This record gives sequence, C-alpha cells and structure tokens, in this order.
Amino acid sequence: MNAESIWEDIGTIRADAPLVHNITNYVAMDLTANALLALGASPVMAHAVEEVEDMVGISSSLVLNIGTLSGPWIEAMFRAAAAAKRRGLRIVFDPVGAGATRFRTETSRRILTEIRPAIVRGNPSEIMALVSSDASTKGVDTRYASDKAVDAAFEITDQYNCVVSVSGVIDRIVSGGKIIKIANGHALMPKVTGLGCVATALTGAFAVVNPSPFEAAATAMAVMGIAGEMAAEKAQGPGSFRVHFIDALHRIDEDDIRSRLLVSTESR
Amino acid sequence: MNAESIWEDIGTIRADAPLVHNITNYVAMDLTANALLALGASPVMAHAVEEVEDMVGISSSLVLNIGTLSGPWIEAMFRAAAAAKRRGLRIVFDPVGAGATRFRTETSRRILTEIRPAIVRGNPSEIMALVSSDASTKGVDTRYASDKAVDAAFEITDQYNCVVSVSGVIDRIVSGGKIIKIANGHALMPKVTGLGCVATALTGAFAVVNPSPFEAAATAMAVMGIAGEMAAEKAQGPGSFRVHFIDALHRIDEDDIRSRLLVSTESR
Amino acid sequence: MNAESIWEDIGTIRADAPLVHNITNYVAMDLTANALLALGASPVMAHAVEEVEDMVGISSSLVLNIGTLSGPWIEAMFRAAAAAKRRGLRIVFDPVGAGATRFRTETSRRILTEIRPAIVRGNPSEIMALVSSDASTKGVDTRYASDKAVDAAFEITDQYNCVVSVSGVIDRIVSGGKIIKIANGHALMPKVTGLGCVATALTGAFAVVNPSPFEAAATAMAVMGIAGEMAAEKAQGPGSFRVHFIDALHRIDEDDIRSRLLVSTESR
Repeated sequence: MNAESIWEDIGTIRADAPLVHNITNYVAMDLTANALLALGASPVMAHAVEEVEDMVGISSSLVLNIGTLSGPWIEAMFRAAAAAKRRGLRIVFDPVGAGATRFRTETSRRILTEIRPAIVRGNPSEIMALVSSDASTKGVDTRYASDKAVDAAFEITDQYNCVVSVSGVIDRIVSGGKIIKIANGHALMPKVTGLGCVATALTGAFAVVNPSPFEAAATAMAVMGIAGEMAAEKAQGPGSFRVHFIDALHRIDEDDIRSRLLVSTESR
Repeated sequence: MNAESIWEDIGTIRADAPLVHNITNYVAMDLTANALLALGASPVMAHAVEEVEDMVGISSSLVLNIGTLSGPWIEAMFRAAAAAKRRGLRIVFDPVGAGATRFRTETSRRILTEIRPAIVRGNPSEIMALVSSDASTKGVDTRYASDKAVDAAFEITDQYNCVVSVSGVIDRIVSGGKIIKIANGHALMPKVTGLGCVATALTGAFAVVNPSPFEAAATAMAVMGIAGEMAAEKAQGPGSFRVHFIDALHRIDEDDIRSRLLVSTESR
Repeated sequence: MNAESIWEDIGTIRADAPLVHNITNYVAMDLTANALLALGASPVMAHAVEEVEDMVGISSSLVLNIGTLSGPWIEAMFRAAAAAKRRGLRIVFDPVGAGATRFRTETSRRILTEIRPAIVRGNPSEIMALVSSDASTKGVDTRYASDKAVDAAFEITDQYNCVVSVSGVIDRIVSGGKIIKIANGHALMPKVTGLGCVATALTGAFAVVNPSPFEAAATAMAVMGIAGEMAAEKAQGPGSFRVHFIDALHRIDEDDIRSRLLVSTESR
C-alpha cells in the first residue's frame, strides 16, 4: 500500500460508487452514511430480517457493527452474512464495546467464529476482548494503546485467517505475519462519536475495490487519518472537526495523500 | 405556486409552528427534526404502537418514511395513518429504497393502496418501482433522472388520486394532468444523506398550511432547492453544506425566493 | 454553586472521563454522545435487556430519556435502573413528551414512582404533565415558560424527594424549598433538536462528580447556557449553532464561566 494505490482506490470508489450495506448502530448511522457518500461510495442501512438478504443481493460489501446491539439485529446480521458469503462479498466487522458486556463479547466471538469476517476493525480494548477475558472496555472507548493489542490481533488473524485493524494514535493493521502501521490522524478524532464506526464502514468500501483485504483495511485507516489531519487544520473543536472531516473525505486528492501519508511495514 | 405564495406559506409555518408527526428512519431523524425546526415547524418523532394514535391526535400532518423499515414500524404506520384519516390530516409518504428489496416495494405498494397518502415523494427509482417490477433502486439512491419517472408518476397520480413529487436535478411534481418543474438545487445535495427524507418532511409541513397538496409539494421542493443554493455558496463540501443548509432554512427570506425561484408548469 | 465549583466539576470530568450510560432516543443519541465527549465525559448508549445491567455495572451514572419510547426499551430502563440503584449510582430522568401521549405520561409517572430518579430534567410542559392531567405538551416542545412549572416542580421534589430541573429562558432547578435560577442561554437553543436531551445527559455527567444532585443539576444547566452563548456569537443559524455549541463544550474555560454565569437563588 502506498500513495498511488490509495489514490487509485479512491478513484475507483468515486467512479463506481459501490453500494455498502451497513447493519450498524443508531448513534453512528448518520455520520457513517455521510462519510461513505463523501468518499464516493453509496451507503445503505437496512436491518430488517425481511429484507437483509435482498439488500445484500444488490450490495458490494457488508459491514456489521454491534454498537447498539439487540436481539433481532443479531439475527439480521447472521442472515445478511450468510447471503454475503453466498455471493462472495467481503464482510467487515466492528466489535463495538466488546469487553464492556458479556452480551457484546459473546456476540462478537460468535460472529468471529461463525461468520468469519474478512476484516475485523476495532479499538485496542475491543480487539483484546475478543481473545482474552482479562481485557476490559470502558463502554465503547478503549483503555489501551494499539501496541498492547498486537498479540491479540496476531492471535485472531492466525486463528480466523482474517485481517485485524486496530485503531489508535498509531493504527496497526495485522494479517498473517505482517503489520502495516499508519501514523496519520489527530487527537480530536476520539472526541467525535462514531469515527471508529466510520473507519469500519470506509474499510467496507475499500474492501470492494482493493483485491487485498489487508491493503484495503490499511488504506481505509490511512484515508481516515489524512482526512482527520486536514480537518484538524480548520477545526476549533470536535463539532467543527466533524464537519471538516466530511468535507475532507470529499475533497481529498492525490497531493493530500502523497504529502501526508505516514506508513510503515513490520514483520512479526 | 409562485414566490409570493411560497413566502406566505413560510410565514404561516413560522407563525403557527405546526406539529408534524414523523414515523421515519434512524439515519435521517436527527437532520429531519432539525430541518423542520429551522423552517419554523415543530417536529415530533414517535413510532410506538402504544402512542402513535395519541400523537397523531395533536399533530397537523403525518409523514411516513420507510428508510430503515422493520415489522413493528409498519403496524405503527398503519395505525397512525388510520388516526390521521379520521382527523382529516394529510399524509405524506416517502418510499425510501422501494425497488431495492421486495420488503420495501411491497410495503410501499400496500401503503399506497391501503393508506392512500395525499402526497408521495421519492427519487425517480423509487417512484418507478411503485408501478413497475423492472425498475431497480441502488439501495436508497436513484439510478434514473426524474424525467424517466414521469410516466410512473402519472400512473400513480391517476390510479391513487394523489400528488407525486419526484426529486432530481429538475424536481417534477405531478398531479392530474399537470407537472410543476423546479430547477433549483445543487449538486452537493445527493451527497448529504437524508436530504430526500428532509424534503418529504418539509412537504409534510407545507401540506398543513397550503390548501393545495399539489402546491404544497412543489413549494417544499422549491424551498429545498433554494436553501440548497444558499448553502452551496458557503460550503466547502457535503459536511459544511449540511450545516449551512439548516442555517439557510432558518434564514431564507422573500428576496432569496424571488431572486432564485426557477419554476415552470407543463401539461401532460 | 458558583463559577469556582462549576470549573472544578468540569476539571474533574475532564480528568476522570466518567462513563455515563444513556438509554435515550434515536433522534438525540448522536448529539448527546458528542456533547458528553466534548465536555470530557465518556458516553455509552446501550438498550438491550441482555446487557443493560452489565453496562450499568461499569458506568458512573445512568440517564433515562423517553424521547422515542417503545415497549422493550421500558423494560431495559427498569432493569438498568434497578442495577444502578444496587450500585448507588445516580439516575437522571428526562420525561420527553410527557403530556403529549398517555403512553409517555404514564411511563414517566411509573419511572418517577418506581425508579425514583435523583434528578428529573424536562421542559415546563413535561414537568407539569407529571403531576397534572391539565397540562399539555406540543409533541416534545413546551407550551409554557419555566415559571409556570415551579408549583409542579415543588410538588415533585416534595413527593419524590428528588431534584427537578426545568429548562427555559430562565432555567429553574428546584429541590426541597429552594430554587436555583440560571439566566444563561440563547434563543437559538430550542431551534436545535435534542439540546434538552443533551442537558439531561450533561446533568448525568455532573451528577457523578458533584456530591449534591441539586448543584449538579444547576451546574449542567449553567454550562449548557454558557456554551450556548459562546456558540451564538459564532452562529449564523441553528445548523452552525449546533457545531459551535459542541466546540464550546470542548473549549469552555474558567474565564468563560466567571464572565458569563448568571445565577441566583430563591427560597420557596
């Protein structure tokens, strides 16, 4: 993944406007849909068991997010995921709040085991909670930095053969024996609710256009971070940051990416 | 409909603050409520079967929107609609995503047939899906321009004796043998999620104060388009556009309308 | 309560980032979470009966808001409240739309009687509807100024031994025989949907750090009003007001509070 490939992927999204089906939480639906639109993708939110299979049938990827989970939505997620599997679509999963309650931790583990998403994207607490009962999550906020979650991420990538994308001051995207590290971003980002959910949804868009889920996940985090830096230059707080962030996703160009991208790769 | 009548209707809404009851989708609730407030109306969102009839009982119009439909909400919509009919309130219906899934298409046709809304407002794909099984909808986004949906709109207005409002670069509002065309608006509008839902809700507000549902529907689209143009002059992308759009609904005055309105009328 | 105590409470929130568990409405979830984050608290939204007790178990206060109530959410509220009582957490209740429908009025009275929240925060119509069947609410907007609700507030504080916080041009916070009056705020505030819900959520944050629920409730309204004044100086309408309001919650400092606070105390 480099500036050229990121720019090419953005160009493809803007040209094709892939439909990304989101089963996500009430808090972040609005921002998520606007972020996907601003990037150039086409978002749809649908959760009814009566229609999720049909909606998957016209979509290009599926994003599952348990931020305000309840029973009927779990059934919808599993039905949608089965339909996505049949169609060969990539599934991106955000275990929001895993570790905070047993309901979230157990549902997340079921999704991991039974659905086997292509990409799992979460904060360090959430990723650690997927494999350890010692990790705790402060509601939906992390208690840890992303380096603390690397071991958990490797355990997940090994066991479930998926990409794990851990957000933080340094984002760490893990697959097989490799780590891509993204050092872009801004301190205001955790002050805007739902930006993690947005990262997951953008990962769902890049997973349509990039043949490698590993690179797709890293590309999404790089674009998040760069748009965040662009927004921060105009923001006076988290309210205006959010507005400028959506503008930045819409305006981001090749120069923004080339001049700002901070990426490095490591092996285990 | 002309600049004077639009300005008069806005004045009445600002003076009376009519209560508009919305049973709408999770994604657009926040923006919809803010847009109604900014225009001068009073929004309420209520969907529980236990209360929708009571809420209709104190409201001045009812807006139904299936953007994130599920079973229990359908029952609430039918109960609310029956109560609205008993009180003689106008019902505005937005068939969000009709054509994308059978669930949405079939529910939309049931609402059309059994509830008989005064006004149906949708994008071209959605309007076409109400009468043709060939039309398809890309999630909640249109695949067609509004002129493609004119035949479908005429078929619906003839069969159900309702007004059909089709959004697009040119908005086309159809009733009986007539079309009002509104050429206001801006290219950023489809980049903001839920602005179609907002158009439907504002139609619900104008349907309270304008005796003609045909003119009410056209007035709402004109105000949407003019506020969109005002917002675009200050926007740097879809994020700031959305903010300025709400400001514009709050600030719009007679001069803005007179100087910008682009309306024409056609007969079938 | 004075400028020093307000500033101290904000400092504690910013330092400790207490987790505030919200069971609230779909319309205001996004703004509420952003406001809590901007202030320095950590918000979580969770409503599933399967997890509310666990989530309360790691939270520092509980906020109940019936803005888009439905049956299953009532059960979640009662379960969460019972868990909060067991842990000695303060519960803040917002009877959104009480008086508009029997469902809301009756549920609100049940919550008042059976849960006995530490603080009830509402608009004048809602507070009056809790004790009188004559009061009416226009959807979720008030029909009355806050002075009209003082008798009702005293009746509630006497009967349920709780603090009652009534918003308005003058906010009136009532407890026992005393009233704190806050004269801060701006006319654009009722033009932004969900700001009342935000006031309730911030009350939930201050109720963690201030030993007196009476002062916590007054502090929240003072901070709301001062941030509103700061936002209004930059706003061009309700859209930009909302953005600047979140920025102001993030930026508010001791000088802003000292120079703007308008507080007075009365006895019954």
